[in-house]
Amino acid sequence: MIQGVPARRIAFRVEYDGTAYHGWQAQPDGHPTIQGTLVDAMSAFFKARVSVDGASRTDAGVHAYDQLAAATITHPIRPEGFIKAVNKRLPDDIAIGDAREVPLDYAPRFVNAGKIYRYQIYTDRNRRPLLDRYAWRIPWALDQDAMEAAAEHLIGTHDFTSFAASDGSHRSAERTLTAITFSHGPQDVLQIRVEGSAFLKHMVRNLAGTLMEVGRGLRTPAEVREILVGQDRSLAGVTAPARGLLLEKMLFGDRLKA
Amino acid sequence: MIQGVPARRIAFRVEYDGTAYHGWQAQPDGHPTIQGTLVDAMSAFFKARVSVDGASRTDAGVHAYDQLAAATITHPIRPEGFIKAVNKRLPDDIAIGDAREVPLDYAPRFVNAGKIYRYQIYTDRNRRPLLDRYAWRIPWALDQDAMEAAAEHLIGTHDFTSFAASDGSHRSAERTLTAITFSHGPQDVLQIRVEGSAFLKHMVRNLAGTLMEVGRGLRTPAEVREILVGQDRSLAGVTAPARGLLLEKMLFGDRLKA
Repeated sequence: MIQGVPARRIAFRVEYDGTAYHGWQAQPDGHPTIQGTLVDAMSAFFKARVSVDGASRTDAGVHAYDQLAAATITHPIRPEGFIKAVNKRLPDDIAIGDAREVPLDYAPRFVNAGKIYRYQIYTDRNRRPLLDRYAWRIPWALDQDAMEAAAEHLIGTHDFTSFAASDGSHRSAERTLTAITFSHGPQDVLQIRVEGSAFLKHMVRNLAGTLMEVGRGLRTPAEVREILVGQDRSLAGVTAPARGLLLEKMLFGDRLKA
Repeated sequence: MIQGVPARRIAFRVEYDGTAYHGWQAQPDGHPTIQGTLVDAMSAFFKARVSVDGASRTDAGVHAYDQLAAATITHPIRPEGFIKAVNKRLPDDIAIGDAREVPLDYAPRFVNAGKIYRYQIYTDRNRRPLLDRYAWRIPWALDQDAMEAAAEHLIGTHDFTSFAASDGSHRSAERTLTAITFSHGPQDVLQIRVEGSAFLKHMVRNLAGTLMEVGRGLRTPAEVREILVGQDRSLAGVTAPARGLLLEKMLFGDRLKA
């Protein structure tokens, strides 16, 4: 840091392949995390401890195109120079972009109005190396119409206790989902996009695991409504693996505040 | 191998993430290759040396959805059991699929009528960890219309000396390209698909590098015609990096024989 330069806050986007990391949040046990790796890279460049806050505490193994984060520095570097300097010190599987100066009280957790997560599934009896890194392999055919009908029951404001990690800490499990959409990407990978204002721990993975069970025919779409109303985690399906989950987009403005 | 069981030939598809490998072809220096890794996995399972032939000698770092290969075994295993047994012994970045019994003289190099390669490019000033593994980053905007106009000159039967590796060995550099198409994948990645009956060493990567230079405005579409006619490797553009190249699809039948 440079003496006499006032504190400045820089917000930026973080993209990462989460495969090698124990999630976003820095851990005292020394396991590599996204946040910890960013702190190390910035602290090395600025020769002083820099703290980094993120908008979303992604789980171990989860990927992000569009994590939002911010750091406070006392250095006159321009945002574009900040990106170059930090990216040079980050490993290949993490990079930052879109840096800009923001007010000192800018808090990534509270400035976004919502997020879009994408969960990816492919169906094959055998594993597919070019798909496995970012998708969940299911060896059965899936009934997408049934999955879409089940997803309809999840849209809106509900108590999502049945889809929250049983060890999660939250005052209220009420959350609002504004959209769940289905599409197909390259190699016919099923992409389930879940858009909401905020999410509980493991919520998208538990929704994806339950929708997968509907697709297999193990549950009916109407049962998903009962699972939701039951407010009991044991009613819902498996937790889909982290590798298939991507934090795709942060949403801003009034889009989700209606 | 089991005594008294006649030799059988099994053809199969191979999918791989080539990042960690020195290409398809087994090398005497012990560097890991796709072919060598398949030979090791099958030889371990069958407790005898199994040879594996492939249709395409992909370069170091190149990926494949649809490499075609075949192995000769003396074991009564069914094709589906062959897939399971071999995949269990392969690392995560290689897997086989679609196994079937074929005549003993089946040669993967000669049964396909053509191939589709996909070359992926993204434009960003900063690196993108979720794209870098399978795409080439270009920090400039690209004029796709110019690239498409340049590609028109390459369709058809030509001497592709200008786009062949200068150390390549081939009797004739005459090859036929039947299509070059442009599309955009997730995150707006530019996908250039090159379809042809056969390819010279580095040919798709040299075409991609030259088309990129047209996209940047360093060359005109008409110059690509001159490069082709000049039959001199030094006339064409850079060799695009291997990471952006995927062997996407093997073509069979009379589609390319017209």
